[in-house]
Amino acid sequence: MKTSTTLPAAPTPTAADLKITEITITPIAFSDPPLLNAVGVHEPLVHRVIIEVRTANGLLGLGECAGGQSRLENLAVGANAIKGLGVFDTSVMEQLITGALDPSLSSFEKAAVFSAFEVAALDIQGHATGRTVSELLGGTVRDEVPFSAYLFYKWAEHPALDGKPAITDEWGEALDPAGLVRQAQKMIGEYGFKSIKLKGGVFPPAQEIEAIKALREAFPKLPLRLDPNTAWTVETSQWVARETDGLLEYLEDPTPGLEGMGEVAAAASMPLATNMCVVAFDHIKRSVELDSVQVILGDHHYWGGLRHTRELGTLCQTFGIGLSMHSNSHLGISLAAMVHVAAATPALTYACDTHYPWNGHNDVVKPGALRFVDGSVRVPTGTGLGVELDRDKLAELHQQYLDAKMTARDDTGYMQRFMPEYTADLPRW
Amino acid sequence: MKTSTTLPAAPTPTAADLKITEITITPIAFSDPPLLNAVGVHEPLVHRVIIEVRTANGLLGLGECAGGQSRLENLAVGANAIKGLGVFDTSVMEQLITGALDPSLSSFEKAAVFSAFEVAALDIQGHATGRTVSELLGGTVRDEVPFSAYLFYKWAEHPALDGKPAITDEWGEALDPAGLVRQAQKMIGEYGFKSIKLKGGVFPPAQEIEAIKALREAFPKLPLRLDPNTAWTVETSQWVARETDGLLEYLEDPTPGLEGMGEVAAAASMPLATNMCVVAFDHIKRSVELDSVQVILGDHHYWGGLRHTRELGTLCQTFGIGLSMHSNSHLGISLAAMVHVAAATPALTYACDTHYPWNGHNDVVKPGALRFVDGSVRVPTGTGLGVELDRDKLAELHQQYLDAKMTARDDTGYMQRFMPEYTADLPRW
Ligand SMILES: [Mg+2]
Ligand SMILES: [Mg+2]
Repeated sequence: MKTSTTLPAAPTPTAADLKITEITITPIAFSDPPLLNAVGVHEPLVHRVIIEVRTANGLLGLGECAGGQSRLENLAVGANAIKGLGVFDTSVMEQLITGALDPSLSSFEKAAVFSAFEVAALDIQGHATGRTVSELLGGTVRDEVPFSAYLFYKWAEHPALDGKPAITDEWGEALDPAGLVRQAQKMIGEYGFKSIKLKGGVFPPAQEIEAIKALREAFPKLPLRLDPNTAWTVETSQWVARETDGLLEYLEDPTPGLEGMGEVAAAASMPLATNMCVVAFDHIKRSVELDSVQVILGDHHYWGGLRHTRELGTLCQTFGIGLSMHSNSHLGISLAAMVHVAAATPALTYACDTHYPWNGHNDVVKPGALRFVDGSVRVPTGTGLGVELDRDKLAELHQQYLDAKMTARDDTGYMQRFMPEYTADLPRW
Repeated sequence: MKTSTTLPAAPTPTAADLKITEITITPIAFSDPPLLNAVGVHEPLVHRVIIEVRTANGLLGLGECAGGQSRLENLAVGANAIKGLGVFDTSVMEQLITGALDPSLSSFEKAAVFSAFEVAALDIQGHATGRTVSELLGGTVRDEVPFSAYLFYKWAEHPALDGKPAITDEWGEALDPAGLVRQAQKMIGEYGFKSIKLKGGVFPPAQEIEAIKALREAFPKLPLRLDPNTAWTVETSQWVARETDGLLEYLEDPTPGLEGMGEVAAAASMPLATNMCVVAFDHIKRSVELDSVQVILGDHHYWGGLRHTRELGTLCQTFGIGLSMHSNSHLGISLAAMVHVAAATPALTYACDTHYPWNGHNDVVKPGALRFVDGSVRVPTGTGLGVELDRDKLAELHQQYLDAKMTARDDTGYMQRFMPEYTADLPRW
């Protein structure tokens, strides 16, 4: 190589420098408001996991994913499988993790486990090369990533339970159209979102249609989405689609299964979206055959990391399917990863979902790098993901996890503590 | 960012350092044997283009693509559109090039123009970060990339023409089964290939079937492929498929069009492959609907660069389609790019095609980085593509281009110089 074409060799980390030497998996718990959905209500604490990957030369990469006892066990298997691997070998990382996990696990779970480590590896790649994660994915096609206001029906407080007092929050009650409009006004006032998503499936569909109409009146120009998480039959979904004709930019998971979604899609004027019936590459072929969904909500936690999420975008473009982005309750490492991949994915056609307004005050990343302005987050400019871990906060949330003795998320069981007759049998209407 | 998690900032190139300041587009011509195919015979010279991209800090990236007058014009438009862009912004590069080119051009041509610059940009990314191109694509899943022996019916020499003497080559004549077996023995002896592809469509199909049977007898264990470049009708293709039942790992482009291929596929025992009816993401949806092809021959020159080729792999996996790799006459920059992307694409399921045995002795890259051992090429270990330009050779091949006053490839016109009655109307049988 001519000297004019290469950099001085000294500062470049060697392959040995970038081998993974240590992985720390820290389960945490953070507070969550009583948000209602089709299968119950959010518990007072969310269980999540923070991944720290370290290399021989001391670089640190971060990952974040959903928690639960079986996930923790699978993450431990994954971590064990990739010790000694170079951080640029993410394809081999996927093969090693997939091969080490119990073969009976779903492709979804395998992809989810890999994803947490892939994000951490890309974070380190960024630190090692002085680039951002989005640069390593092909560069940003947008400098800021738009998100939507994610509205929930909610109680005013977590009720007193087991001798513990009630837990209130800043958001107040939202059990009717007026309450949701107030919630939207507060959230949009603080974050500046330019589109609105309502988590439905909580009340009979006629009531949720009224909520959509109230939001349309209060926010005449903002695109609206409704997501009942498969709470409706095909017939009910078709009826809701007729009643909301012209009101929704998309209707998300009205009914279960690719066949049912296909029947609703054939009758609906708006696109159908999903993060439930198409959540892995395995599911796409049949969905295309049935034309079940017109929008896929990508999620790097689901789809096997950031590179595969970008690939999902190309696949969506190829089949004329729109791309939006799904969110579970999450903190800033996930948000940073979402922003980098969304910025680097040309196929993204909708504002992304985020729970950050509900949970972001608990964040384990230091403030500054992630900020909502006019509903969008600018791509962090630091190397890698561009966020830094707040170790005091991590320790606090880990202790909270230990104290709570959590195992798995259980919205339904929590609801049944207050309404013993409650069931989560869907479709409900 | 904590000091323990970041490298010293000084040696990392800044955004300004990595802006594209200069692009050189050099048309070249290199010698080619008289290889026969379904539309004529290769001319004595192949027209190709070498791209050099330079950044503000003096880094150099290389690209290579097919030539022709209109391609040169399109490359000039593309080069003009990306001056000042950072080399990590390849998604924006694609948008700028696609937007600058004549909108009436095919998506295929737009992708081909972008591809040459994307490869050069990734080459520079590698130099700037001290990584190989395959590392930037997700790391290698194979350290060496297998290729197939690409056999052609051929004349013993380019006949004397226009007062110029005949041009012989080291390969001799191959116009019957015995000639092809001799060619295969020589090529496999020198390169060690573990599979064989025969370019057909030259003689009536019964003769080409005899050639396949002769190759099967001479090489009992090597997978065989036959590619008549759409020289056959659906009925003839179905007949050939029956006659070669159990002999071929795949049958490539027997007949034109997605519909015809679908009819052949429905009747054939072996997979059908293509680099003709599915050459852009646009074509995949219909192909999936018709189940026209079971193997796609990727080609980063066709599919919009290295990242999109990897994405094509994921798409193929998603739909249960195999992935092989196509080749046109090419030199070492293209070969290096092919090796990096093939090594980094988990979905690759077949040995790749290459014309390198026919053209590699003309190479514009310095010897050493690219070597066939047992039919495979090891991934170059230098930064970026890992190959270096031989400027003397480049100047020589450019002069050869100027002297030849070439415009576009014309296998048919060249054939007609010797057989005025020859036509390239396909399907022929
Ligand atoms: Mg949803
Ligand atoms: Mg072919």
